[in-house]
Amino acid sequence: MINLDKIKEISKTSATKIVLLVIDGLGGLPNPETGKTELETAYTPNLDGLAAKSICGLADPVSPGVTPGSTPGHLALFGYNPTSFNIGRGVAEALGIDFDLEPKDIAARGNFCSVDKAGLVTDRRAGRISTEQNLKLCRLLDGLAIDGVKIIVRPVREHRFVAIFRGEGLSADIGDSDPQWVGVVPKAITALSPEASRMASIASQFVAQAKEVLAEHHPANMVLLRGFSRRPKLPTMDEIYKLKPAAITSYPMYRGLAKMVGMEILKTGTTIEDEFQALRQNYTSYDFFFLHIKETDTAGEDGDFDRKVAVIEEIDRALPGMTALLPDVIVVTGDHSTPALLRAHSWHSLPVLLYSKWCRPDRVNEFSEPACISGGLGRFLATQIMLLAMANALKLDKFGA
Amino acid sequence: MINLDKIKEISKTSATKIVLLVIDGLGGLPNPETGKTELETAYTPNLDGLAAKSICGLADPVSPGVTPGSTPGHLALFGYNPTSFNIGRGVAEALGIDFDLEPKDIAARGNFCSVDKAGLVTDRRAGRISTEQNLKLCRLLDGLAIDGVKIIVRPVREHRFVAIFRGEGLSADIGDSDPQWVGVVPKAITALSPEASRMASIASQFVAQAKEVLAEHHPANMVLLRGFSRRPKLPTMDEIYKLKPAAITSYPMYRGLAKMVGMEILKTGTTIEDEFQALRQNYTSYDFFFLHIKETDTAGEDGDFDRKVAVIEEIDRALPGMTALLPDVIVVTGDHSTPALLRAHSWHSLPVLLYSKWCRPDRVNEFSEPACISGGLGRFLATQIMLLAMANALKLDKFGA
Repeated sequence: MINLDKIKEISKTSATKIVLLVIDGLGGLPNPETGKTELETAYTPNLDGLAAKSICGLADPVSPGVTPGSTPGHLALFGYNPTSFNIGRGVAEALGIDFDLEPKDIAARGNFCSVDKAGLVTDRRAGRISTEQNLKLCRLLDGLAIDGVKIIVRPVREHRFVAIFRGEGLSADIGDSDPQWVGVVPKAITALSPEASRMASIASQFVAQAKEVLAEHHPANMVLLRGFSRRPKLPTMDEIYKLKPAAITSYPMYRGLAKMVGMEILKTGTTIEDEFQALRQNYTSYDFFFLHIKETDTAGEDGDFDRKVAVIEEIDRALPGMTALLPDVIVVTGDHSTPALLRAHSWHSLPVLLYSKWCRPDRVNEFSEPACISGGLGRFLATQIMLLAMANALKLDKFGA
Repeated sequence: MINLDKIKEISKTSATKIVLLVIDGLGGLPNPETGKTELETAYTPNLDGLAAKSICGLADPVSPGVTPGSTPGHLALFGYNPTSFNIGRGVAEALGIDFDLEPKDIAARGNFCSVDKAGLVTDRRAGRISTEQNLKLCRLLDGLAIDGVKIIVRPVREHRFVAIFRGEGLSADIGDSDPQWVGVVPKAITALSPEASRMASIASQFVAQAKEVLAEHHPANMVLLRGFSRRPKLPTMDEIYKLKPAAITSYPMYRGLAKMVGMEILKTGTTIEDEFQALRQNYTSYDFFFLHIKETDTAGEDGDFDRKVAVIEEIDRALPGMTALLPDVIVVTGDHSTPALLRAHSWHSLPVLLYSKWCRPDRVNEFSEPACISGGLGRFLATQIMLLAMANALKLDKFGA
């Protein structure tokens, strides 16, 4: 495989434009009654017509057999090897609430939990307290300062929050306090390297203070922290591909990720049609668009086969509003599969179509998992999609003499 | 690609069971008269029926174009990159005779050879002496002790034996004595690193003593040693996959390999039906079964196309005795190809079928090399088979947040 440094050397700007349409959790599994996946079931004349002019294939975000979380799934689509660029749990959680992490911040995922008088964890989720209650408790903890480090506490949902440690000389190299089990005391937070000892001490003091503050708030009378992490330093898409990239997505997590790779975040409403509208409004100002649609994944996670089908059909109806712009390269795929039957992300490979004037179409004329198997891209790694898009946009020089 | 350490982090136990059926040397080449490979020729209604419910593909154990030995072929199937975990010639030979190597043992492959009065090698194989003669000569050499190191000598077949050096502070980092040519003297055994100088001296003394002992036993009046090696330290399948794995194979080499990755070796007779019987008898006690059938490879190496076809048909008849157990995941493949036409291992990719409730079947309904080309797994690395099996057994957590 070619690495990012090599891509930097051969990438070049040009007037062409690329649209990457990511249908979150697109891949599915066949409905036992019909033998057809969500994508096969959906009536998609526009996607099928596009597939007929495209080169198709099946892609794996991390590896065959590996179920990607949303961050590795998207990093792969942007061409970043998700096993090299790891986004910690704390950072992912901060992205998920649109919190703007500064480069030196350390973020941790927090749970409100219940402990008994002896300090043993009795419920790691404090009975899933309401989000309103969470909000109130976060206000009690937010803004503590320890040894010159400010601790910012922000609610997520139910028992979940994010704790951000902001100050100089911090390290993310410390262990969790979450023991992952009940009936034991929370783990002491320990430094995993000598440089992290101050950070371990600050995090421990925060936990101790939180315990005092929450003492009378049973069931949420303690906190558990895990996944201490710092925003990874990623080369931007401008640096690698010399692109001017923009993101259209109505979910905070994906906005955060897109920002991390240097995309401009475009204003958009929350419907599918809103997002296509945002693309049209901004089409002249950028040369790469990441257009992200979340509802397919949500329907898959809810186990709602029919709703996932309906969302795919809605995307299909909106598609002409994108193809009419005549992008030089169009890629349609997902970030991972979310089969309604599994009600979760899965390892199944992703259908991919890539259209350009230069794509060398194969004989696939239907956009579906079983049809893409016979596509000209074969089965390949999703990290190669950006290279293919760049090549088809004539934005890559020859490699080697 | 994801490495073993990452797999350790995401693997988990569950009640599901995996059966990996390895048909040794399965892949073939078309008979010039019929245009069909051994597998295409064989009447295999059960394998074809399973393929129809499965996801299929073609796998390469090491790389497209590389012919694997039996050890790399199997390591790949167990998920170990065969270019990272090298099993030396001496160790492979010891495994092949069911010799239980201790962690510190150094094993070397030995040849009885002929030398003339000047000490020049005249026949590297001593005229391929009989195995009986080999046995007698090994008894003469077995049990020598040099500088506190015991040398164990065990016959293999014809002129081949294994020498095991057992003692403290030994090193495998020494050169061969086998010059690979006749008309020259055996090479002096040299240390390839400073730590290995004592080992080089012990091995040299052993060769000198062997020469004396064998002086009157022409044509087998000298020995040549090569491939000094130590059992590699492999993480076990329990450590990586959290599996309780068992092996069913009637050949020592494969038992040795299976033991090296932490499998329990189950008692079995030597016929195909015996092996399926052993699977049924032990089915409740393990969650992973490596079921190995050797005869296809032997028939291929003998150039016996029809016998290879017949063995495949025998396996097909035995198959219902396995599928009736309703394993959650079934993988059927080979460790390498052994086309009868080539009478040897070959580089040709392996047909693979993977059945599970969650496999997302493709449109392949016949288990053969040309049919698997259109399978949903595409062409992929055999090292990914275990990941796919684990995923389909729902034994892997999501990767990344």
